[in-house]
Amino acid sequence: MPTANAYAAQSEASGLAPLTIERRELRGDDVAIEIDYCGVCHTDIHFAQNDWGMTMYPVVPGHEIIGRVTAVGEHVSAFQPGDTVGVGCMVDSCRHCEPCQQGLEQYCLEGPVVTYNGIDRHDGTVTYGGYSDSVVVNEHFVVRIPEQLDPAAAAPLLCAGITTYSPLRHYGVKPGHKVGVIGMGGLGHMGIKFARALGAEVTVFTRSPDKVSEAEAQGAHQVIISTDEEQMQAAAGQFDFMLDTVPVQHDLNPYIGLLRYDGTHILVGLLEPVEPPLQAGPLVMGRKVLAGSLIGGMPETQEVLDFCADNDIACDVEMLDIRKLNEAYERVKKGDVKYRFVIDMATLKGTAS
Amino acid sequence: MPTANAYAAQSEASGLAPLTIERRELRGDDVAIEIDYCGVCHTDIHFAQNDWGMTMYPVVPGHEIIGRVTAVGEHVSAFQPGDTVGVGCMVDSCRHCEPCQQGLEQYCLEGPVVTYNGIDRHDGTVTYGGYSDSVVVNEHFVVRIPEQLDPAAAAPLLCAGITTYSPLRHYGVKPGHKVGVIGMGGLGHMGIKFARALGAEVTVFTRSPDKVSEAEAQGAHQVIISTDEEQMQAAAGQFDFMLDTVPVQHDLNPYIGLLRYDGTHILVGLLEPVEPPLQAGPLVMGRKVLAGSLIGGMPETQEVLDFCADNDIACDVEMLDIRKLNEAYERVKKGDVKYRFVIDMATLKGTAS
Ligand SMILES: [Zn+2]
Ligand SMILES: [Zn+2]
Ligand SMILES: [Zn+2]
Ligand SMILES: [Zn+2]
Repeated sequence: MPTANAYAAQSEASGLAPLTIERRELRGDDVAIEIDYCGVCHTDIHFAQNDWGMTMYPVVPGHEIIGRVTAVGEHVSAFQPGDTVGVGCMVDSCRHCEPCQQGLEQYCLEGPVVTYNGIDRHDGTVTYGGYSDSVVVNEHFVVRIPEQLDPAAAAPLLCAGITTYSPLRHYGVKPGHKVGVIGMGGLGHMGIKFARALGAEVTVFTRSPDKVSEAEAQGAHQVIISTDEEQMQAAAGQFDFMLDTVPVQHDLNPYIGLLRYDGTHILVGLLEPVEPPLQAGPLVMGRKVLAGSLIGGMPETQEVLDFCADNDIACDVEMLDIRKLNEAYERVKKGDVKYRFVIDMATLKGTAS
Repeated sequence: MPTANAYAAQSEASGLAPLTIERRELRGDDVAIEIDYCGVCHTDIHFAQNDWGMTMYPVVPGHEIIGRVTAVGEHVSAFQPGDTVGVGCMVDSCRHCEPCQQGLEQYCLEGPVVTYNGIDRHDGTVTYGGYSDSVVVNEHFVVRIPEQLDPAAAAPLLCAGITTYSPLRHYGVKPGHKVGVIGMGGLGHMGIKFARALGAEVTVFTRSPDKVSEAEAQGAHQVIISTDEEQMQAAAGQFDFMLDTVPVQHDLNPYIGLLRYDGTHILVGLLEPVEPPLQAGPLVMGRKVLAGSLIGGMPETQEVLDFCADNDIACDVEMLDIRKLNEAYERVKKGDVKYRFVIDMATLKGTAS
């Protein structure tokens, strides 16, 4: 079996260190990719630390993968060696259920196979992610990177980008809409760019007054300090959509109050119980909606890449030497990155495993 | 000022007793109505008892009003004396805001004037509801009762009916959809009839095994005992919509689990905080939606009446002598009515105030 160099966590407290892993021989519909860049997502940290109690060690995180095709299986016609491609959060799904048929593989009724810490549907092996110099992926789960895009800055589009783009498109955000973006991390800063590019009037909600100029630089038309009662009161009943990217428990009720009737609060980051409790009255009184959204399907993942190429949108990234991955994790935990670390996989060469 | 006979609560613990009230002189756009029937809604009890701390005594409840026009103001052309008409939960609104313009007066940005315990926009008086022999209402908030309908059985359409009809229509329930109806009181039994008439496959959720045959008689294709883990498990991921009519705190999470991806859980009864806490993960993982809905606007209130006439739908009612109103309240609190009390206003004649 071919091997690959990777960075892996071996236990909850191990941190990440070099590891040689196996990558499968090409199946007929597989694409082999030499990885150039991989984004660092907060989810990677949760899995490395086993925060959700479901990590199978060793775990090789990374689901914002950019690279070049090095070989293709015999049935692959859409890609050829040399193509610049991407792989996001999924590497397989059942392909025949209703959501799969609709290009919503993320909601596959049998569960999508996630890019790392997933179970391969064919041989039962555990999937390894993009903190590695190569990967082998079914062609259906490989996207094409438009040449107008900087490949390094495109990496976070494959998770942070599609996660924020998909619900804005699903709910039909367009000119005339007022969209609030809550949080300004990896997801939030992309949400601002997308909502603005779709023609909406964009307001950023942040607890930090020192983020106002940053948010404006990202394209926000307005910034509201969410701890300022007066500013929040003044914005009541105004928003068509709230894109809530905050990944930890927080009070949704003040934001529900900012929605207009028929407005929608979209959760993309919160996976925990909603506490303090959601008030049902305001939902009923204004026919308001609380909705969730998970990444995006493969057609839409290609679409967001093309949309970024057409609209000159890029993630703001800080390039990372993989040998500094553990320090980078600490900085991500503190929110100290603008706005996404992307590993330069050239730095993996020569690290010992 | 003309007077009317009514039943009113004078304090939290007074119960309801006869009271003579004033009804205003006709304004140009008013319709005077002699009331024949009025439904008893659980909301009436909450206001009589001041459960929500907002009751202005004396309160004359009742917002499911059926009667005959006795006089019209000089500018009224749509109604004439003798017409059988209805009045629901609202008697006025600003008429110029966006929701008002869209016929969604229930979401009026200035707040609709509710049929009782509301403040009249013109003279500042407190509105009195339908437990009375007459009422005067702006013509825009009067609906026409199709002659195919039994007027007594039509009364609950004006609150229980429109409350369940509106969200099913708003979300486009149609053949092929699987709809769950939670609760089988005044609202729930109408939800079953409407969902079925719209072509959906209808499942009723109840905690009482002895309600199975009742639910089937109402039109349910299937009944699930919500406390039976096995039945609930077997139904996981199947429903397009849940119409949740339960007016008290309950765990939403098991029902969210029964929704398919993109499914919607609709709250029409719950106005309290959602406890136990809502799990955000399943919303995100299945792009599911939690939504609220409040009664319906005036065009849709006329629509539900016409829909019932066209589809031969009626509420199941128990006729009530108004002198037994306090006993009826106790029975409603115990859920001991199938499925709505409707006061026969003829019984009000001769009660002393
Ligand atoms: Zn991610
Ligand atoms: Zn599938
Ligand atoms: Zn009511
Ligand atoms: Zn209005």
